[in-house]
Amino acid sequence: MNNKFIIAIDLGGTKIKASLFNFRLQSKAEKIFTTNKFKDKRVLIQGIVDIIDGLIEENGLSKKNILGVGLGMPGPVDSEKGKVYFLPNICGWKNVFLSRILKNKLKLSVFLDNDAKLMALAEYNFGSAKFSKNALCITLGTGVGGGLILNGRLYRGQDNAAGEIGHLPINLSGPICACGSKACLETYVGNKRILALAKTVFQRDISLEELSQKARQGDHKAISVWEKIGECLGVALSAAVNLLNLDCVVIGGGVAQAGVVLFKEIKKTVYARSMLVQGKRVKILKAGLGNRAGAIGAGILVKERLGI
Amino acid sequence: MNNKFIIAIDLGGTKIKASLFNFRLQSKAEKIFTTNKFKDKRVLIQGIVDIIDGLIEENGLSKKNILGVGLGMPGPVDSEKGKVYFLPNICGWKNVFLSRILKNKLKLSVFLDNDAKLMALAEYNFGSAKFSKNALCITLGTGVGGGLILNGRLYRGQDNAAGEIGHLPINLSGPICACGSKACLETYVGNKRILALAKTVFQRDISLEELSQKARQGDHKAISVWEKIGECLGVALSAAVNLLNLDCVVIGGGVAQAGVVLFKEIKKTVYARSMLVQGKRVKILKAGLGNRAGAIGAGILVKERLGI
Repeated sequence: MNNKFIIAIDLGGTKIKASLFNFRLQSKAEKIFTTNKFKDKRVLIQGIVDIIDGLIEENGLSKKNILGVGLGMPGPVDSEKGKVYFLPNICGWKNVFLSRILKNKLKLSVFLDNDAKLMALAEYNFGSAKFSKNALCITLGTGVGGGLILNGRLYRGQDNAAGEIGHLPINLSGPICACGSKACLETYVGNKRILALAKTVFQRDISLEELSQKARQGDHKAISVWEKIGECLGVALSAAVNLLNLDCVVIGGGVAQAGVVLFKEIKKTVYARSMLVQGKRVKILKAGLGNRAGAIGAGILVKERLGI
Repeated sequence: MNNKFIIAIDLGGTKIKASLFNFRLQSKAEKIFTTNKFKDKRVLIQGIVDIIDGLIEENGLSKKNILGVGLGMPGPVDSEKGKVYFLPNICGWKNVFLSRILKNKLKLSVFLDNDAKLMALAEYNFGSAKFSKNALCITLGTGVGGGLILNGRLYRGQDNAAGEIGHLPINLSGPICACGSKACLETYVGNKRILALAKTVFQRDISLEELSQKARQGDHKAISVWEKIGECLGVALSAAVNLLNLDCVVIGGGVAQAGVVLFKEIKKTVYARSMLVQGKRVKILKAGLGNRAGAIGAGILVKERLGI
């Protein structure tokens, strides 16, 4: 298997990352493109094809060396059928059989799944959830996604739609959410909401990076913002902990970089709001694989589907 | 197997029900006792032994005819070890290895589990969740319990403590709960809370039965109470639905008797607060086995453990 490779595509709201993995899922090469120029669906699909062809060629390989391609999609998908239902942050995608389209163009095996599910798969196999049997992995960003490992396997639910921790209501009433409901966790801790809260506190625009840095430096205003965010996250996580008796919760995504202040408040709230047995069991951990998790998860998906 | 039987014990807060099942889990005889006279732990254990001995004798059987005994306990247990951690509504129980104690006294195989988990097992095998792969069964009473069927199996979590839908927070802040947390579903929809709410609305004490009856007759005040309860239940259930992409939610326990008004409001809220795919999938159903679910579940447990 020394001359066999896997290609993983991590499709984000603003960029596409393509990784060339060896059989052990060690990264051998990487290419990143912004998605700005791929507004049209057909152009974006051709962009993915070109990236993959480029990655193969630039590394002196041919298609015979590629076991398969795995894609992480930022939206709901039917992983078995390779179908993308829609992409909340990229227009023009509705019920696209992307695996089949790419397979025809590339003449390679192509598999896809939701990116938060792939992150969970990666953290369970190689990251912070490695020694866990029942874990929730949550990604914090513009949206709040999640993936569940239950009894040592990715739990999908009937429509592959399980894991939506971002859409747990944390109040009977509250802000309207993009999903159509209200008071969802995402409406309290999504990036936009954090920036809006920070603007109110600082009376000026402030970036997430600056807000995190200020908190690390002990700025009380910045700390107060992260404490509020941490409390909301803690309440939603305690719901999952009480319902599922989880071993661990793994927190990833940009906001997880806020560091000690955020994690301290999350932990405090989860332990205060969980039942005795459940609270004693659960560990709250930072994601171990950073922004590589999606690509690694896509690589695992390819190996799983090919049974290798 | 025609002369082989299973005994199921359903231990409630106020009574013990013992059922004699044939091999197909059809009820052949039943005995009910109140637990008032069993305040002391040792007396209660002896009471269980006496009920079982009585049931065997009165039906002209001997212990050779009994495959095993299953017990449903109203509290957290270690089902594998046959250990009761504690019983919230019955004093004096802490870390009791009840299966072993009863096995020594009865010279029969004895297995136990939490009653809400056994209800889920029964509804999945013979009741409303029969055609479901992923289901949450919730019991409404003084406490609010739950059991989860995921991928066609009872999901326990690492400590057999999964399913605690009654302790999902439905607000960031709210009434203090017996579990030590606050704003748990149980603090909004437990029987005591319903009675208190009804007393405020009617300006007098009113029983749950009367409240249900009045609602069925179209009394606006009674309907308003059940609508409030239904909304709180709906919000907590939508959290479970979004997180687990459930096929169905089965609702049992005394309060489920409130009927159409309650179910209408629960459904309305679940569909309004769930995500598109999840909301479309999930069915909200009344429990199919009524108060027989716990006993039937205990019978299933015995069969599962004995591998028959």
